[in-house]
Amino acid sequence: MSISYVSDLETPSVLIDLDKMERNIAVMQARCDDLGIQFRPHIKTHKIPDIARRQIEAGAVGIACQKVSEAEVFADAGFDDIQIPYNIVGKRKTRRLAALAKRAEVTVTVDSQPVIDGIAEAAREAGASIKMMVELVSLNQRTGTTPQAALELARRIKAADGLHFAGLMIYPSDAAIRPRLLETLALFADAGIAVETVSGGGSGASRDAHLLPELTELRVGTSIFWDWNCVVADYTGFDQVAMRVRATVVSANEPERVILDSGSKAIHSETNDGQFGHIVEYPAARLHKVNEEHGYVDCSACPSLPAVGETVHIIPVHTCVVTNLHNQLFGVRGDRVEVIWDVAARGMVW
Amino acid sequence: MSISYVSDLETPSVLIDLDKMERNIAVMQARCDDLGIQFRPHIKTHKIPDIARRQIEAGAVGIACQKVSEAEVFADAGFDDIQIPYNIVGKRKTRRLAALAKRAEVTVTVDSQPVIDGIAEAAREAGASIKMMVELVSLNQRTGTTPQAALELARRIKAADGLHFAGLMIYPSDAAIRPRLLETLALFADAGIAVETVSGGGSGASRDAHLLPELTELRVGTSIFWDWNCVVADYTGFDQVAMRVRATVVSANEPERVILDSGSKAIHSETNDGQFGHIVEYPAARLHKVNEEHGYVDCSACPSLPAVGETVHIIPVHTCVVTNLHNQLFGVRGDRVEVIWDVAARGMVW
Repeated sequence: MSISYVSDLETPSVLIDLDKMERNIAVMQARCDDLGIQFRPHIKTHKIPDIARRQIEAGAVGIACQKVSEAEVFADAGFDDIQIPYNIVGKRKTRRLAALAKRAEVTVTVDSQPVIDGIAEAAREAGASIKMMVELVSLNQRTGTTPQAALELARRIKAADGLHFAGLMIYPSDAAIRPRLLETLALFADAGIAVETVSGGGSGASRDAHLLPELTELRVGTSIFWDWNCVVADYTGFDQVAMRVRATVVSANEPERVILDSGSKAIHSETNDGQFGHIVEYPAARLHKVNEEHGYVDCSACPSLPAVGETVHIIPVHTCVVTNLHNQLFGVRGDRVEVIWDVAARGMVW
Repeated sequence: MSISYVSDLETPSVLIDLDKMERNIAVMQARCDDLGIQFRPHIKTHKIPDIARRQIEAGAVGIACQKVSEAEVFADAGFDDIQIPYNIVGKRKTRRLAALAKRAEVTVTVDSQPVIDGIAEAAREAGASIKMMVELVSLNQRTGTTPQAALELARRIKAADGLHFAGLMIYPSDAAIRPRLLETLALFADAGIAVETVSGGGSGASRDAHLLPELTELRVGTSIFWDWNCVVADYTGFDQVAMRVRATVVSANEPERVILDSGSKAIHSETNDGQFGHIVEYPAARLHKVNEEHGYVDCSACPSLPAVGETVHIIPVHTCVVTNLHNQLFGVRGDRVEVIWDVAARGMVW
């Protein structure tokens, strides 16, 4: 496909505004530099080695992936400091993890003894060395454990061959988690166990990071593109959002029934205030429903109406999940397509 | 990847129970045969040529795709009767459509004059012949037009070189749409325009098809796998659902905070009654939240609790959107993996 101009692109296509992306990379790195902590971009937002390379060149210490299979894609592309902040469970996965740790520095997180045991066995079999952080449960009530249990897990990690206790992980590392973190650090200090890294994460947490001075590292994904969720949460403004989905109006027989060629397969089905995206050219329009290939737009509040064949641009609710739907992202500057990226780690579910 | 047994599969993996799928294919074909209408499976549910071939062998007349790029995948695989029940808009797409129509019998639908004009121009340029149905707006208020406008569009199609008026399309073709359909057919009869095909579609509509005796053809996708939505809507029962997502418990530190390795990247984020899937082994569990790589399960109502490392099976809310997330589906019979399919038309958004 020979493409020079945005206007040549088929729809739906995911556009990345390169000026905005470059500024977003610089701003987050500067934020971490100012705080004196390491920045470790989570690649789930873009899933593209070339973009991660730009983040490393800007000063990032390494990358975070959420899956072993994602990490393999990035190791193949030459990345050698990869964190997987996830409980890696199951024989096939732990073996792949151990194989990966033979060719890159790999850090994982754990929140229970069985997870440690499975990884320890694979590391032993492979003769691999794996760094391991313990996850503290945070306000989102997802994975993670209590301060006292974290201490016990750290002791087990330190006692296991091939494993190296690397610190504590929190997601999201909102300021409200500080009492639990301080309690944990006190327990570890009493036990004489050094906590090398305190790794925090989350887009909102990046704003709060100065309120958690114990952090040594920040993992953020979304800030490279931002999205509508982040605008509504006041983490950023519309002007900083680098991703837009270019869409075409395919039906416009009634103002309250304008249909785009972009549905849940193009913009996903996560919602913000009951809407599936913000239409730049028609801010009063409501993208209120999606099927796989249809976006339903109520334009009855718009001063003018879109016509069949017109292209519009959608700011997605959540950029990370949009990236995972597409085989390519298009890096644009003004009206030119400057780079076409294959989404190399798309669909890496293992 | 050498895999013989289901227990060898990494998680999350999408399992297709071949016995159930084969029965589902036979039941829907028999339903259409009994009604004396053609069955045209919508391939969006599986996106796999080998599965569509089984549907054709069972008696289906051809296939339906939702995108030109999907249709190209199936034409490459030898399918020669392809319907795209969608407004194809934009010069690149209409040119691809016309090229496709040079190597397969292609039928599209339209609901406005600009859509007809764009396709007519591409057909003329390519010297292609394209069949065109007019879509009637249905109760879902998506695409489609009114009876009177449909007649005008049919006249324009008949007047255009390279286009052939092929009939009327309705989605979903619920029984309640019959008055509008009868009104339209009367208008066409008065105008002396033959309506060769009345193509209905939708899983619920298949149940109602006998109440719409004007139908000549039925397009259904989901019935090959069914899903939780269809169970709740009483279109089928749990025993007929052929798709399950095999998942692993990665954290179980508290009964109300059991975490699976399957989130929105594996089971999507559509919901049914606030839940993201039905867990076969723990029917009292509530899969109440997903992030990309995490499924949050409240097991506090379960008589026993899952352990870290345990595998469970999730019946998805909506199978079509799950297929689009995965690179492979695994056809299983009992505890054996009989076939591994690449999802050839996954991510075909154009």
